[in-house]
Amino acid sequence: MPQNLLVAQSGGPTAVINSSICGIVEKALQREKIRGIYGAVNGILGVLREDLVDLRQEDRSSIRTLRKTPSAALGSCRYKLSANDFNRLLEVFTAHDVGYFLCAGGNDSMDTAHKVAKLAAEKKLELKVMGVPKTVDNDLPVTDHCPGYGSVARFNAIATRDSSLDTDAIYTSDTIKIIETMGRDTGWITASTALVKETEDSGPHLIYLPERPFIEDKFLNDVKDVYDRLGRVVLSVCEGLKDENGQFVKASTKGIDTDKFGHAQLGGVGDYLVNLISEKLKIKARYDKPGTIQRVSMQCASQVDVDEAYRVGEVALTKAVEGESDKMIILIRKQKDPYVSDTGLVDLEKVALRTRSVPDEFISKNSNFVTEAFIDYATPLIGGPLPEYARLKKTKLERKLPPYD
Amino acid sequence: MPQNLLVAQSGGPTAVINSSICGIVEKALQREKIRGIYGAVNGILGVLREDLVDLRQEDRSSIRTLRKTPSAALGSCRYKLSANDFNRLLEVFTAHDVGYFLCAGGNDSMDTAHKVAKLAAEKKLELKVMGVPKTVDNDLPVTDHCPGYGSVARFNAIATRDSSLDTDAIYTSDTIKIIETMGRDTGWITASTALVKETEDSGPHLIYLPERPFIEDKFLNDVKDVYDRLGRVVLSVCEGLKDENGQFVKASTKGIDTDKFGHAQLGGVGDYLVNLISEKLKIKARYDKPGTIQRVSMQCASQVDVDEAYRVGEVALTKAVEGESDKMIILIRKQKDPYVSDTGLVDLEKVALRTRSVPDEFISKNSNFVTEAFIDYATPLIGGPLPEYARLKKTKLERKLPPYD
Repeated sequence: MPQNLLVAQSGGPTAVINSSICGIVEKALQREKIRGIYGAVNGILGVLREDLVDLRQEDRSSIRTLRKTPSAALGSCRYKLSANDFNRLLEVFTAHDVGYFLCAGGNDSMDTAHKVAKLAAEKKLELKVMGVPKTVDNDLPVTDHCPGYGSVARFNAIATRDSSLDTDAIYTSDTIKIIETMGRDTGWITASTALVKETEDSGPHLIYLPERPFIEDKFLNDVKDVYDRLGRVVLSVCEGLKDENGQFVKASTKGIDTDKFGHAQLGGVGDYLVNLISEKLKIKARYDKPGTIQRVSMQCASQVDVDEAYRVGEVALTKAVEGESDKMIILIRKQKDPYVSDTGLVDLEKVALRTRSVPDEFISKNSNFVTEAFIDYATPLIGGPLPEYARLKKTKLERKLPPYD
Repeated sequence: MPQNLLVAQSGGPTAVINSSICGIVEKALQREKIRGIYGAVNGILGVLREDLVDLRQEDRSSIRTLRKTPSAALGSCRYKLSANDFNRLLEVFTAHDVGYFLCAGGNDSMDTAHKVAKLAAEKKLELKVMGVPKTVDNDLPVTDHCPGYGSVARFNAIATRDSSLDTDAIYTSDTIKIIETMGRDTGWITASTALVKETEDSGPHLIYLPERPFIEDKFLNDVKDVYDRLGRVVLSVCEGLKDENGQFVKASTKGIDTDKFGHAQLGGVGDYLVNLISEKLKIKARYDKPGTIQRVSMQCASQVDVDEAYRVGEVALTKAVEGESDKMIILIRKQKDPYVSDTGLVDLEKVALRTRSVPDEFISKNSNFVTEAFIDYATPLIGGPLPEYARLKKTKLERKLPPYD
C-alpha cells in the first residue's frame, strides 16, 4: 500500500479552505501510516504538471496559521480534465507513491475526484480518494451546508447591515442601494444579506434570488412600494439573476469571459439595475459589489465555519486512512439550539456536478425576500458574536417655529 | 449667552463619525455651561426643518456605543443651502437658545459652517460655530489627515491584500483583478490599497489616482508588463479617474445622478476597464467595487481613527465653550515613530470648499503606484495589529516524470 498523502485545493478560494488543509495536515502528522505529506500547486493542474511540494518541510506554526489565512495557500485552479489527463494523474500518483488523494472543492472538483477514484479502481490502483467540501456557493447537495458559506454569509450579513445604516443616514440624497452578491446558479449567498436585518424597516428591504425569474416590471413595482413607504430602499441581488427566458439579466457575452466549464463570467447586474431604476423610476441609485472580497474576508470569517472547515479536513484524512474512498465528507445538523453539527460520508457520485438550489420554503411567497425558515437555517452558520451598534431613541424637541419648505 | 449645544453630521457617513459625536456629547455632559444637548436629524436639513432631538434623553451606554457604531446615527444629508436658508438657520438657533453649533463633515460642510458663523457675527448673535473634520476622502487641507480616512484605508488595505491572495491562488483562470475604490477628486483612498502589500510580487501591482490623467495606451502597457512578468495583475483604480481632457473615464451622465453640489455620481470605472482589457489584451479580468461598504465597515475600523475622531469631537466642544468660533479642529502629527498626534485649530475659511490632492511626492514617477513616502505617511493611520497570514515555503518535490502539456 502506497503511503504518501497528496492534498489539493480547487475552484474559487474561500476564507476557510486553508483551515481544511490545516485539519488534513495536522491529522496526517499524527498518523504513522502516512509518510510523505504533499501538496499540489494550483490544484489538479499541479498534479498534471507534477508541481508538488513537501508539506513536511513547513514549520508547524505556518501550518497552524493556515487556519486563519484566507484564499488557497497551495494555489487553486478551474480546469476541466480531458480524457488523457486522467491517465496522467494516475501516473503521477504512482510515481510519487500516493496512496491518499484529498481534494477540497465544489461540485466540479467532486466530479474530478470521483472520476479519479473510478479510474484508479478500474486500474486496480491502491488509491483512496476523498472529497472535502468547499464552496461559498453552498450548493453542494446532501450536506447540510458547505464550509466557506458561513463566512461569506457573515461578510454579506454585516456588510449589508452597515451599508443599510449608510443609506438610512443619507437617504435624502443616496436613496436606493443595490448590493450585488456572488452566486452563479443559486441564491444562498444573496439570501445571507438578510441575516442581521435589525428591524422591519431596516435594510435589506428586498432580495432577489436566481431561483425565481427576474421580472422587470414586478421588480420596479417592489422598489417603488418600499420607496413610497420608507423614502429609501436597500436591496440585494444575485449576480446570476435570470429573466423568464433563462437568460442572465446581465452577463458578459464575450467568449474570453467563459471559463473552462463553460460558465459565463457574471457581474454587471448592479450596474444594470441602477440604470433601470434611474430610467424608469427617476430615482437615484448606486450599487456595491464586494466581488471576490466577500469570499476571502478573514476579518468577517465565521468561527463556526473556520472550525467546521478544519473538522471536515481532519475527518477526510481519518476516513481515508481507515480505508474509505470515493466519498465526500458532509456536515449534519445534530442539534438546533445550541447549534451542534456532526460529520458523515456520501458517495462522490451523488454530489458530483449536482447543484442544490435554495428550496421553496426559504423564499418568500412574493419572491422578493427570504423566509424565517431560512433565517433559522443560516443564522447559526455565521457564528457569533455580532458587533453591537447604538440605536438612539431620538426624543424629538418640540417645534417652536412654523414649518419651512 | 445661550446655553444649548446643537450637533449635526453632514455628508457621506463613515465608520467613525459617530465616535466624534460621542466625544462631543460625553464632553458636553461634563460642562456646566451647557444645558441642552441637541442633535439635528439629517444634518443641516434637520435644522431647517426644526427636526431636533434631545440627546440628554439617551442612555449613557447608547452614547458610549456610538464610539463603535458606523454610519451617522443622527442622520446626514448632502444639501446645498440657498440664501434664504441661512436666515432660517439663525431663527432656529435663536428659537432653541443654541449657543454652540458643532458640525462634523467635509469641505462642503465646512463651507456651510463658515457661512453660518459669518452671518451670526454680522447679526451679533452669540453663536460659537465649530467644524469637526470628517471625510473618508482625506481631502481637507491644513489638517495632517481626516478622521474617517484611517478606517476606509484599513478596509481597502486589508481587502486588497485578501483579494490579491485570491488572485494569487486562482490566477490560472482569474487573471486580472481590478479594485475600484471611492474618491471623487483625490486618490487618497485608492492609494491606501498599497498599505499592506506583502512582497514585491504581491498585489496591488498597479495603482491609478485621479491626480494623474488616465491614458489608455499607457494603462494597457502597464497591465501587459505585469502580466508578462507574473501571469497575473491586481490593480486598484479610483472611481474619479479622468482622461487627458479632464473627462471622467466613466461617469454616469444622467442628470438624476448629479447631487445638489453638482458632483456627478461616479462608478463604473471597474466595469469599463474590465471590458477594455478584455477587448484590447484578450485577457479575462474582473472587478471588485466595495462601494459604500468600504466607508462604514466597523469590522475593519482603525483604532487610531476611532480614537482621533473621538478626540476632535471632545476638543471642538472644549474650544467652543472656551469661546472659539468659525474654526475647524485639525490633527497635527507630533511624532512619527511611535505615531503621536495632537490637535489644533484652523479658520473655517481656510478649509471651506478646498480640496487637498495627493501630493507629487506620494505618487510614483511613472504615475502607476504610490511612493514609500506615502506608505510612511499613511501606515500609522490604519492602526494595528493587522491579521497575520501563513506563507508556505513550498519546497518542491523532485519531478520523476517527463513534462506534460
